[in-house]
Amino acid sequence: MEINYSELVSIKYVSVERIDGTGSSSVLDTLSVEEPLEIRLSYGPKTERIQKNISVTMRTPGNDIDLAVGFLFTEGIIASFKEIQDAYAVKMNCLSQKQNIVQVDLNENYIPNLQQTDRNFYTTSSCGVCGKSSIQSIKTVSSYIDLPKSKRTIPASLFYNLPAKLRMAQSDFSSTGGLHASGLFDLDGNLIFLSEDVGRHNALDKLIGNALANNQLPLKEHILLLSGRASFELIQKAAMAGISIIASIGAPSSLAVELAVEFNITLLGFLKENRFNIYNLAAQTSIINV
Amino acid sequence: MEINYSELVSIKYVSVERIDGTGSSSVLDTLSVEEPLEIRLSYGPKTERIQKNISVTMRTPGNDIDLAVGFLFTEGIIASFKEIQDAYAVKMNCLSQKQNIVQVDLNENYIPNLQQTDRNFYTTSSCGVCGKSSIQSIKTVSSYIDLPKSKRTIPASLFYNLPAKLRMAQSDFSSTGGLHASGLFDLDGNLIFLSEDVGRHNALDKLIGNALANNQLPLKEHILLLSGRASFELIQKAAMAGISIIASIGAPSSLAVELAVEFNITLLGFLKENRFNIYNLAAQTSIINV
Repeated sequence: MEINYSELVSIKYVSVERIDGTGSSSVLDTLSVEEPLEIRLSYGPKTERIQKNISVTMRTPGNDIDLAVGFLFTEGIIASFKEIQDAYAVKMNCLSQKQNIVQVDLNENYIPNLQQTDRNFYTTSSCGVCGKSSIQSIKTVSSYIDLPKSKRTIPASLFYNLPAKLRMAQSDFSSTGGLHASGLFDLDGNLIFLSEDVGRHNALDKLIGNALANNQLPLKEHILLLSGRASFELIQKAAMAGISIIASIGAPSSLAVELAVEFNITLLGFLKENRFNIYNLAAQTSIINV
Repeated sequence: MEINYSELVSIKYVSVERIDGTGSSSVLDTLSVEEPLEIRLSYGPKTERIQKNISVTMRTPGNDIDLAVGFLFTEGIIASFKEIQDAYAVKMNCLSQKQNIVQVDLNENYIPNLQQTDRNFYTTSSCGVCGKSSIQSIKTVSSYIDLPKSKRTIPASLFYNLPAKLRMAQSDFSSTGGLHASGLFDLDGNLIFLSEDVGRHNALDKLIGNALANNQLPLKEHILLLSGRASFELIQKAAMAGISIIASIGAPSSLAVELAVEFNITLLGFLKENRFNIYNLAAQTSIINV
């Protein structure tokens, strides 16, 4: 699956297979770009300048300096703009020279308030990747990722029915968007477990925690349904549990698609009652249009 | 504003003022519950047992043990369920005896993989509160919170027009839900700044960072418009910037409402072109129904 970069860095165009009741077609789809941004801070007197990695956040590129400055302020690390001597994007020697680091230099006279952060802390677009010590190490390694998977053929109609099954199992309030939901289905389309949370990564952790406690891992003969959008950290968590088919009712982010490709996970998006897009089709999976 | 607790801990009922073109009425509204959960881990031989606070996540109560176990597994801290000796909810002596702590005890033979986490890491429902060392200290203190605010009267129709103004300023892709947006308006309803991101807390940090760099803080004569739902951490970040009026197109969480009450912030939700709900009306603000 080839990903073309547009001039606008906040969106990417990707070629997807669109499946509906009448057939399948290859179309160009738009993705929100999701990429890590590392915020670095330097402070202290010239002679003993201290350099500190403050945070890695999954963000959409654009206004990166504002983001770094705003983050430092809203987290209470700096108290005013005059503490800042300079703030600028740093080119990395990896990740295609993307500018995914912002360096903020404080004036010599100011000491940042790192009381709550002196252990380093990490943020993501909806968290879940917190705690990785650099952009390069953000991908958690799973023992299930390289498991051999058996071949299977799944009719498209089986996917069409999943959102309604999920909604039926939810309360009125949560099915209308009050809470994020994760649903685990078997390959016949039966709902095995449903979890809900105000945080989408929590809903998925609840589902995987329950499967772990019931000795069901790896979930390689299952379908994970996400009620909203699919972001990087949801794919990463699913990969940890050996999940090889993910369908989301909303859109995936750019990094979610890249991770699905890397981990050989089938990823469907915009799943409705009569159509969906295929963002990645794992080698062992076939989808037939019936 | 009185908040009644229902039997179901994942939702709360709250009495709100609903404003529309025809008048205002007091109605009961449903909120997703958002509350912190602290995950604690103990491990090591009986004689020198180590107790560690692993994470604070903003979550919806329910399946808390699954959540804690799933989190430890998907973050790579434990590799299998047999490492766990016991996992249980702990009653706290604060926060109305809510069970907002899960304790996970590992078997003596297993050492958790805390390489990436030995600084402690923290997660929230969409992050942004990362880095606070306990549930009690989760609320960041702002120097602008207790600022005296001038009285103002705002016509309801001014709010009705904000979502369309925000959408007009966004791209087609992002206005249809591709990206979260934060918009800063003056009290006449003019859009001053727009920011977008795949993470809603990033969009708000971009907006506040820009205002900080332009010496516009505190934003006490402004309205913040959120394109989606309002969660705890968005209210907390807004409070840091002295924002006193927040309108969200989606629903607020339970904790967002509680924080708005505590910080004397006017909080509107479900803002549409002809109606909205008032979840909290700050003392200095009047809304007249024209």
